[in-house]
Amino acid sequence: MSTSLRIDSLLQAYKSGSTTPREIIEKLWQEIESSDPAIFISRPTWDKVDAFLRHLEHLTPAALPLYGIPFVIKDNIDQAGEPTTCACPAFEYTAEKSAFVVEQLIAAGAIPLGKTNLDQFATGLVGVRSPYGIPKNAYDGKYVPGGSSSGSAVALANGLCSFALGTDTAGSGRIPASLNNLVGMKPTRGVLSNTGLVPACKTLDCISIFALTTDDALKVYEVASTFDPADAYARPDIPIASKSVTDLIVGIPRADQLEFFGNSAAAALFDQSIERLKTMGIATKEVDLQPFLDAALLLYEGPWVAERYAGIEDLITTQPEALHPTTYKIISGGIKGTAVDAFRAQYKLAELRRASEVAWTEVDAIITPTAGTHYTVEEVLNNPVELNSNLGRYTNYMNLLDLAAWAVPAGFLEDSGMPWGVTFFAPAFTDRKLAVLASAFHAQTPLQ
Amino acid sequence: MSTSLRIDSLLQAYKSGSTTPREIIEKLWQEIESSDPAIFISRPTWDKVDAFLRHLEHLTPAALPLYGIPFVIKDNIDQAGEPTTCACPAFEYTAEKSAFVVEQLIAAGAIPLGKTNLDQFATGLVGVRSPYGIPKNAYDGKYVPGGSSSGSAVALANGLCSFALGTDTAGSGRIPASLNNLVGMKPTRGVLSNTGLVPACKTLDCISIFALTTDDALKVYEVASTFDPADAYARPDIPIASKSVTDLIVGIPRADQLEFFGNSAAAALFDQSIERLKTMGIATKEVDLQPFLDAALLLYEGPWVAERYAGIEDLITTQPEALHPTTYKIISGGIKGTAVDAFRAQYKLAELRRASEVAWTEVDAIITPTAGTHYTVEEVLNNPVELNSNLGRYTNYMNLLDLAAWAVPAGFLEDSGMPWGVTFFAPAFTDRKLAVLASAFHAQTPLQ
Repeated sequence: MSTSLRIDSLLQAYKSGSTTPREIIEKLWQEIESSDPAIFISRPTWDKVDAFLRHLEHLTPAALPLYGIPFVIKDNIDQAGEPTTCACPAFEYTAEKSAFVVEQLIAAGAIPLGKTNLDQFATGLVGVRSPYGIPKNAYDGKYVPGGSSSGSAVALANGLCSFALGTDTAGSGRIPASLNNLVGMKPTRGVLSNTGLVPACKTLDCISIFALTTDDALKVYEVASTFDPADAYARPDIPIASKSVTDLIVGIPRADQLEFFGNSAAAALFDQSIERLKTMGIATKEVDLQPFLDAALLLYEGPWVAERYAGIEDLITTQPEALHPTTYKIISGGIKGTAVDAFRAQYKLAELRRASEVAWTEVDAIITPTAGTHYTVEEVLNNPVELNSNLGRYTNYMNLLDLAAWAVPAGFLEDSGMPWGVTFFAPAFTDRKLAVLASAFHAQTPLQ
Repeated sequence: MSTSLRIDSLLQAYKSGSTTPREIIEKLWQEIESSDPAIFISRPTWDKVDAFLRHLEHLTPAALPLYGIPFVIKDNIDQAGEPTTCACPAFEYTAEKSAFVVEQLIAAGAIPLGKTNLDQFATGLVGVRSPYGIPKNAYDGKYVPGGSSSGSAVALANGLCSFALGTDTAGSGRIPASLNNLVGMKPTRGVLSNTGLVPACKTLDCISIFALTTDDALKVYEVASTFDPADAYARPDIPIASKSVTDLIVGIPRADQLEFFGNSAAAALFDQSIERLKTMGIATKEVDLQPFLDAALLLYEGPWVAERYAGIEDLITTQPEALHPTTYKIISGGIKGTAVDAFRAQYKLAELRRASEVAWTEVDAIITPTAGTHYTVEEVLNNPVELNSNLGRYTNYMNLLDLAAWAVPAGFLEDSGMPWGVTFFAPAFTDRKLAVLASAFHAQTPLQ
């Protein structure tokens, strides 16, 4: 099913007349009805979906870049007329307007099929912190689906849509991609508007794209990346010259900076990934990941948690019991820091950013594991904060350091048979340049 | 005296042999000896100055861009081997290294003649908040010299150097320029390194340049603006295309947004300044200054005061009595805010920055008064905080909104006979583009 839902395949099928948006969407609608109930928090009525289909019947497939392409929306992003919950029932409101990005996608012909589950208030990388249940990992329900964009990733991996919107502040658009064998694009901060997104860390949040291929993600990105002056943190995209794959130099972290948390199968797959790059004719060079790793620690150990508190101050002060216990534990700490602490952490971050820049004089991109390992649901429920932190080792620094990142599948772990992925990252605005690399690498990744 | 100390004049005189650095510097040294003792906090020994002169005797004037040019340094900027006090005796330390900018200037042949008085910890726009005395305004000692870079401005206005280093977080490089008939250049944030500057607000501080002409300031800027990777907030200069003066459109704030605090002579001089622009063939256009004015309020009413606290936390917690009472009153408030407050203020600032950008789609630069009025020492001592705020109305927002600014003399007030100036500002990296405008305007400003 997945292959036929690729955007290109679907558009081609629509153009050839071998199928229609109505046929595809009706079929998906049935499949969603019988799918894991923890994937979606809410769905529009069929009547609303039908209206999108009827609109398209006035147009030809060539008229719109995402004509009849089904997608799902993480439930911290607004769709007009639908509830937004952030996986917190007490927070629920009905959105008056769609998020700017959702508007762009709908205008381009894409059809939203529902609002997906998440780690409450997008706080977490595990996918188990929601009163709406734990979406089952698409490959083995024993393992966490990853989060916070759990429902979006699982919906896509289960063939219920062609692409999915997530968000990615600390890794929420990449960890679930890795754990469900998907491409997860974390765009440059600000290029996708955050208007209509409930903030987690307002200075760091990104809407992210889950897709089956890098080409699909790029297609969505082209539509979604319209500059939105109403978002004070939005930035117009800056074109950066691409290079051919074999002209790229890819940085590899020093061996002692790589951590697989005891998962030797993951370590082996990372080694294979490096070998694959070399086979592809790509030059590699050792880089120092320490400034990046040090910056990652600032995200949850520093004052940025205050941003999460700022986002839900009313709720957390008046109805603390409405929060998931782990979410409450994390976010309630956000009120402790002083403004002095906040500025000091920003000074520290500025120094780490400067130190991290040394790498970019030497390489075009850096490859890391997306997550060093994976965990079962049971393991995470027994140790919710530490294991979450382990998953974020290679993701937490990206937005703090203003980087663009692509998480792509790298293969399957020899022992568990679970999917596992790597991430390519580089400074802001290199999204398209990185896509060339991510795409070529993904093309060489063996199927299961 | 002033005219002959202009950098061009002096270099020309050295080249022609009509005078020598030694002759000039010895004369200035004598004049400094008998000058207002509140101008300098410390001076190097003659032996050290003599060493600079002897070094130059090995070179010709053509060898160095600032060959034998005398300058002074605000005493929150390090000069190797000299004390740095920030106008707080308890804070004094002897600098091991010169500030990066001072190093560049000395390497270019400039000769430092002393460390100048300031509003303690660069907190203030008045020049009366120092235990080292109140430097007398160069035109009338009854009036405040302006601050915080009081000593630097007064030294230059009294003909004791060719240029002077100040700093400018909230207006400290522009207000004293206006009150002493000088050019005050506040460069784009980060283009002049802050290595070796004691931070006031580390995210906002700029080293600034006082000069007799815009050409002189630009010459110093060219030498001082070397990129310094060791300063985490440093940014390489970005060349912006200049325009000829008559191709520029200059924005003028709406009449109801102009405030002269009852000073009708200043209002008249501002009107004359606008007329002068029109006479010069420059197009003008009304702009909305409100987002700028709203941002200004954040600086002292918002959490940025926490940065000042962060800068001197050890001192203010262990020896609060070592601070000037007004300085203590302001900075001690910096510990009150939470990290949540700090982030919220940054959100607000991002929105105001976005709103302010509308102006830049319509005009190349905006003109405002540098200060709406001026005050006597007595007035400021009786009402130290409010009158200081009034002076900062048009300066406080510049660094928060990432702007470049030139303060230039506009003439003399009809009643008091005191100098008064205007400021031209535009987005970051327009320093040279603005210089064309500032220079042409200054050339039309009548001498006293």
